[in-house]
Amino acid sequence: MSDSKKKIYVGVIGAGHCTQKLRKLSAEVGEEIAKAGAILVCGGLDGVMKGAAQGAKSEGGTTIGILPGTDKSEANEFIDYVVCSGFGEARNLIIIRTADVVIALPGMFGTLSELGFALKLKKPVVSLGSWDIDDKVIKAENAKEAVKLALKKVRQ
Amino acid sequence: MSDSKKKIYVGVIGAGHCTQKLRKLSAEVGEEIAKAGAILVCGGLDGVMKGAAQGAKSEGGTTIGILPGTDKSEANEFIDYVVCSGFGEARNLIIIRTADVVIALPGMFGTLSELGFALKLKKPVVSLGSWDIDDKVIKAENAKEAVKLALKKVRQ
Amino acid sequence: MSDSKKKIYVGVIGAGHCTQKLRKLSAEVGEEIAKAGAILVCGGLDGVMKGAAQGAKSEGGTTIGILPGTDKSEANEFIDYVVCSGFGEARNLIIIRTADVVIALPGMFGTLSELGFALKLKKPVVSLGSWDIDDKVIKAENAKEAVKLALKKVRQ
Amino acid sequence: MSDSKKKIYVGVIGAGHCTQKLRKLSAEVGEEIAKAGAILVCGGLDGVMKGAAQGAKSEGGTTIGILPGTDKSEANEFIDYVVCSGFGEARNLIIIRTADVVIALPGMFGTLSELGFALKLKKPVVSLGSWDIDDKVIKAENAKEAVKLALKKVRQ
Repeated sequence: MSDSKKKIYVGVIGAGHCTQKLRKLSAEVGEEIAKAGAILVCGGLDGVMKGAAQGAKSEGGTTIGILPGTDKSEANEFIDYVVCSGFGEARNLIIIRTADVVIALPGMFGTLSELGFALKLKKPVVSLGSWDIDDKVIKAENAKEAVKLALKKVRQ
Repeated sequence: MSDSKKKIYVGVIGAGHCTQKLRKLSAEVGEEIAKAGAILVCGGLDGVMKGAAQGAKSEGGTTIGILPGTDKSEANEFIDYVVCSGFGEARNLIIIRTADVVIALPGMFGTLSELGFALKLKKPVVSLGSWDIDDKVIKAENAKEAVKLALKKVRQ
Repeated sequence: MSDSKKKIYVGVIGAGHCTQKLRKLSAEVGEEIAKAGAILVCGGLDGVMKGAAQGAKSEGGTTIGILPGTDKSEANEFIDYVVCSGFGEARNLIIIRTADVVIALPGMFGTLSELGFALKLKKPVVSLGSWDIDDKVIKAENAKEAVKLALKKVRQ
Repeated sequence: MSDSKKKIYVGVIGAGHCTQKLRKLSAEVGEEIAKAGAILVCGGLDGVMKGAAQGAKSEGGTTIGILPGTDKSEANEFIDYVVCSGFGEARNLIIIRTADVVIALPGMFGTLSELGFALKLKKPVVSLGSWDIDDKVIKAENAKEAVKLALKKVRQ
């Protein structure tokens, strides 16, 4: 069996445009995912998605970006494998379905929508400063803890 | 031009299974939508969707149900026009995109996801006891007020 | 039960831009669908979709248009109920899934794709000069025969 | 930039269940794709999809499988990266949109639907014994030639 098939897919969701501070936090999350040997799944564009992918690549990880559109060049340069869904915002559902666990960073209504959908699908969700909407969302204090809690949930 | 094309489409979202009380509230919302001459768009299944459709039909209104699956018979008996999306939960996005304005009733994470998506798309949202997540959501006290506020928003 | 729920949904597929002759043929198909009391489901845009919808409305029928985009005003003026999928070409699948039977008029690769999908889903397909790809597609000589054969297939 | 981003994505479509002979042909196509350093994109399930993925892995290639469902374990064991679309047959569109070029092997109506969609999107298509529907489809005699023609088309 392909080794990568046994790997855990961690979805990272959050703002498409972000501050330097949030970008740094995203990168830390990506680094921890890569160090843990998990695969990063995200929306492939800018902001948190780019930060997380950059972090993952800096630690030799693997990144999958699922785009809303049909133009591969829209993916940020840290995405290894680009999927062009062509389904607009509905690509968020593909990210959540593909992820074994979701880490939510700060974001606006797109992130909220993904969070709701993750909870609907009963996927474990770890929040790192994201929407505080339900007790089912596990709260983490920092990137390291977020990834640790996420992986623990999947391995349960 | 077809008269119905000038009509307003009001999306109603909320729990797929619900109490008698919520069912009654949903029916009142449907009644008000029909009385106002607007078209009800919903997910076509049970709970709030069925209540709202029943209410709309009781006042001679028109109802569209957009199903997650592919089996038309899954639609409740108060749906006039059934669309079988086959896109699972992603059909929520079609409801939101088709609606000119959304009225959110109490519901769980599916409703939260739709709310997030409606806000993301900048559709006006009126909440009648639904998730309290953002100031952009207009709050209503009862069905009559909810529909009144919703239609006012579209006509602005 | 809502009367319209017992109605048959006939999907009409074909070219998005067409000659006057094909437009006329589409209109005849729409007329026959309306006369038979069935509901027309189509892509809601121009060409065969517009012709069929115009024909259906000229006979007092009901028309549903499922758009690829998110802008209701893109629907032609003969569409009664507009659904904005926002899924691009994937909206073709929603048309096929919603239709009880499909009538295929001449068209290019989009039509071919819909035909393939209809056959994949085991929906009955009647061709009126469309792609000649498989014996499962029933051939008709004119609009009247096409609609007659289509309805016969559903009622079997 | 991530090296894999510069790589060519070759979509392989064909029957979900197949004879030993077709399985072998699919494997040869996968081998050639891997030897050429391109990435294989397919539907991730059985038949041609499995044959092609097995061939690609035997030559150290990379394989992406885009599933119709939501259960990662449905992917065949030769898929490196699994995407769970949850969109049923509409996942075919994601395969076509993600591929830079498509190689079509024998298959039934699902394959026909993908072929039509690929042509609609103006993606180059190479046929290796698949549906003979249009002059725009480039015909190949064997796996080696199919991959050679496919890559030539992308590099034009």
